[in-house]
Amino acid sequence: MQNVLKEDERIDELGIGKFKIIQNKKGFCFGIDSVLLSDFAKEIKTGSKVVDLGTGTGILGILLCAKTNLSSVLGVEIQEEVAEMARRSIVMNGLEKKFTILTTDVKKLKNKIKLNNYDVVITNPPYKKINTGKINENEKKLISKHEITADLSEFIKTSYSILKDNGAFYMVHRAERLSDIIYELRKNKLEPKIIRFVYSNEIEDSKLVLIKAIKNAKSFLKVDKPLYIYDNKGNYTSEIFKIYNK
Amino acid sequence: MQNVLKEDERIDELGIGKFKIIQNKKGFCFGIDSVLLSDFAKEIKTGSKVVDLGTGTGILGILLCAKTNLSSVLGVEIQEEVAEMARRSIVMNGLEKKFTILTTDVKKLKNKIKLNNYDVVITNPPYKKINTGKINENEKKLISKHEITADLSEFIKTSYSILKDNGAFYMVHRAERLSDIIYELRKNKLEPKIIRFVYSNEIEDSKLVLIKAIKNAKSFLKVDKPLYIYDNKGNYTSEIFKIYNK
Repeated sequence: MQNVLKEDERIDELGIGKFKIIQNKKGFCFGIDSVLLSDFAKEIKTGSKVVDLGTGTGILGILLCAKTNLSSVLGVEIQEEVAEMARRSIVMNGLEKKFTILTTDVKKLKNKIKLNNYDVVITNPPYKKINTGKINENEKKLISKHEITADLSEFIKTSYSILKDNGAFYMVHRAERLSDIIYELRKNKLEPKIIRFVYSNEIEDSKLVLIKAIKNAKSFLKVDKPLYIYDNKGNYTSEIFKIYNK
Repeated sequence: MQNVLKEDERIDELGIGKFKIIQNKKGFCFGIDSVLLSDFAKEIKTGSKVVDLGTGTGILGILLCAKTNLSSVLGVEIQEEVAEMARRSIVMNGLEKKFTILTTDVKKLKNKIKLNNYDVVITNPPYKKINTGKINENEKKLISKHEITADLSEFIKTSYSILKDNGAFYMVHRAERLSDIIYELRKNKLEPKIIRFVYSNEIEDSKLVLIKAIKNAKSFLKVDKPLYIYDNKGNYTSEIFKIYNK
């Protein structure tokens, strides 16, 4: 198995069946956000055509394929080196018939694939605004974490264009960006339908938000019960434990 | 004391000092939302000039005066009969030097008071969109609960106009309207800074949202820890108990 790896890469088990992922130790490695998003989106139906915007290592697509018998997943990734690593993970998991990686900028995607065609867009986009946060990181990690190549607004505009009418958009993002997210979704006719805030514990502010929006839907938002990562003893809550052990 | 009351009216204790309020048993009576909002806004500084939009019985202004030595409170209320009741509550509490009621439509307020002049706008506006919910209620209750005379967008536009630069806007509203709220605030340059969701208990969706926005501020949102009303035994949580017993 080790011969599929390049320098600084490693293989991680996903804890669902035999699914695995190749990650670069010096790059951006998947975290709990992708796992929570794939669980939040577990209602995605069998046979759905899915696009994962900014797929990175391909983690979201692989997690979704592990849970649901999807028709297809298209992972969009701007960094060729990262895209190539995702392709190796796809082959390693035997998903090459349904999971394809397209190396392109999200901004240019509308010219490259069919519009109004997908059932689901899912995305764990770069979290940070340009010019915020640390920038002493290597370039791959920087592009994966910051809105350098495409910002939130472009991810949302593109999602609207490629989704079918009533198609579903799922995203995980920093809770501090909630206003940007809701404003851009509403402006681009992706109506927020379910929001769930993720809290480390019962005493801290929310760090992450999970959001589901529907293309061209009427307004009515469900603010789901909080999702806590740790209980007051510092252990995973039973909900997190279940998510990781499905 | 009973001679200040008209038919169907009663006096309720507020549980803070000797403050009381007159309410009409058949009209809209204050609930936990006003109490939570006045607590959420407890950081309002001594000497602030406050406007309460859609003041109704005057409950928010009275609660704020009970907690903080404000410079002035202007309560804006469209229904003359309700405004008149609020004026009697103000006199009953000896607040007539600082708390004034102006009977007018929120839509017309910009032509009646000084613009860019207030430190704080606080509001517990009508919750429901026109044409939603039950409408077999008496007219007073209907106007207090539904967006019949002015909608959310008008409350927010007016707030922007009358607030000072960097002035604070506090609102309680239905959580299901979060997207409308954030979209309108952002569009009108009242930047959401703190949001807190109120949950009945740990298993249900959020029913209410408390929000603080600042006029012309930069974007960065704090999503505060959840506020639970009841614990898992059905008793008030210690936080609610404290809020009611300050």
